[in-house]
Amino acid sequence: MKIELKDNEVIDDLQLKGMKIIQSNAGFKFGIDAVLLANFIRTKKSDRVCDLGTGTGIIPLLIAGKSNNTIIDGIEIQDEVAEMANRSVIMNGLEDRITIHKLDIKEVFTKLKKNSYAVVSSNPPYMIADGIINDNSKKAISRHEIFINLEELMGAAAGLLFNRGKFFMVHRPNRLADIIFYARKHKLEPKLIRFVHSKSDQAPKLVLIEFLKGGNAELRIDKPLIIYNKDGSYRQEIIDLYGKESIDL
Amino acid sequence: MKIELKDNEVIDDLQLKGMKIIQSNAGFKFGIDAVLLANFIRTKKSDRVCDLGTGTGIIPLLIAGKSNNTIIDGIEIQDEVAEMANRSVIMNGLEDRITIHKLDIKEVFTKLKKNSYAVVSSNPPYMIADGIINDNSKKAISRHEIFINLEELMGAAAGLLFNRGKFFMVHRPNRLADIIFYARKHKLEPKLIRFVHSKSDQAPKLVLIEFLKGGNAELRIDKPLIIYNKDGSYRQEIIDLYGKESIDL
Repeated sequence: MKIELKDNEVIDDLQLKGMKIIQSNAGFKFGIDAVLLANFIRTKKSDRVCDLGTGTGIIPLLIAGKSNNTIIDGIEIQDEVAEMANRSVIMNGLEDRITIHKLDIKEVFTKLKKNSYAVVSSNPPYMIADGIINDNSKKAISRHEIFINLEELMGAAAGLLFNRGKFFMVHRPNRLADIIFYARKHKLEPKLIRFVHSKSDQAPKLVLIEFLKGGNAELRIDKPLIIYNKDGSYRQEIIDLYGKESIDL
Repeated sequence: MKIELKDNEVIDDLQLKGMKIIQSNAGFKFGIDAVLLANFIRTKKSDRVCDLGTGTGIIPLLIAGKSNNTIIDGIEIQDEVAEMANRSVIMNGLEDRITIHKLDIKEVFTKLKKNSYAVVSSNPPYMIADGIINDNSKKAISRHEIFINLEELMGAAAGLLFNRGKFFMVHRPNRLADIIFYARKHKLEPKLIRFVHSKSDQAPKLVLIEFLKGGNAELRIDKPLIIYNKDGSYRQEIIDLYGKESIDL
């Protein structure tokens, strides 16, 4: 099948079973955050998965490539971005497993069923929208809580999951208190946290969190995920994630 | 002044301005947790400080030795332990700065004034008391939530602090979700978290947390505090804390 590319769009290799993804040099490319999150997510065979704020579709694509018969819905509010993600799904022949919905997460239950997902994932906007509320660029929407805030996002994740379903999220460590507080409010119990550090002697840049809907209070904090060796080269764990020696993060 | 020692008691050097502490080989010695917490606490000149569950008095003693004109109350429920801590205070000539109260933290406001402390500290029991509720040994009381649970402790800390006062705590990482949730309930906002790891590639063993009463939601996670080098020797930061090369943790 021939896939049409728009201005500024490029096709990148996902280094996973020959899979490819369309990205836009004009503003919408996935980051290491999404790759780390996709590798943090654990699914079981035939799980129904929903990715909230799916952007390029990177997380549904990586989950589809790594898991067995999972069925994945990706939710994206931005029309052009959702359309681009959908072309990536078609390009990889994954229309039977991945559906991209152009949809506001706050209205997710108009299309998707409550209490029906085994897994929800999200690489949400990290920053509070103070002061940039009128910037509706693609980048601003993906980075700031313009259309949805953290609590609304966690409420949507909790609503989609069935009891004992899992929510996986990547976020900034400075939001951890908010994350845990809102999670508890919505019956999502943090079960596993992994901090991501550029170097082992630096403060963490990201945090990966697994929540269990209806879980009891017992949290495990994993060993740190370190990106670089002291000499600036990538650590083996990161090289293994990307499946190649040269990484363009 | 001559200090009388009871059976199984020993005097240990705190490696700080000639200060000493009485400990009991029969069951009550301070751990590295208390030393790390005491070094994590920041006080200002003449601050009023309260240490909840003070045990041997290690935290009041170290704070007194490191800070300027602070006035410190130490709360300890166990009669014998409080009495031992009080002898350490006298031995160091710190009766004008440190007062040890034999008191249940749940009844702290019968003796201490609400909203009147700049700093509260605690190295509380880490473990939920399931199943050992009838063990009233000194060790069990210091390690399990027999007389007080985490939420009650945080409520007492919040009540003692004036607005913008700080609470410093050391705990186990597996309780972090509870800690953050209860903190928010009691208007204690987590502002700084530092995880303590035995080695840099291992999961954290302890977590140090600073809360600000009435603070806004913005959390900083510091670089990891690592205890050992790869070769098993102590890291410089730990050696500096103890002020000597040989450490008996």
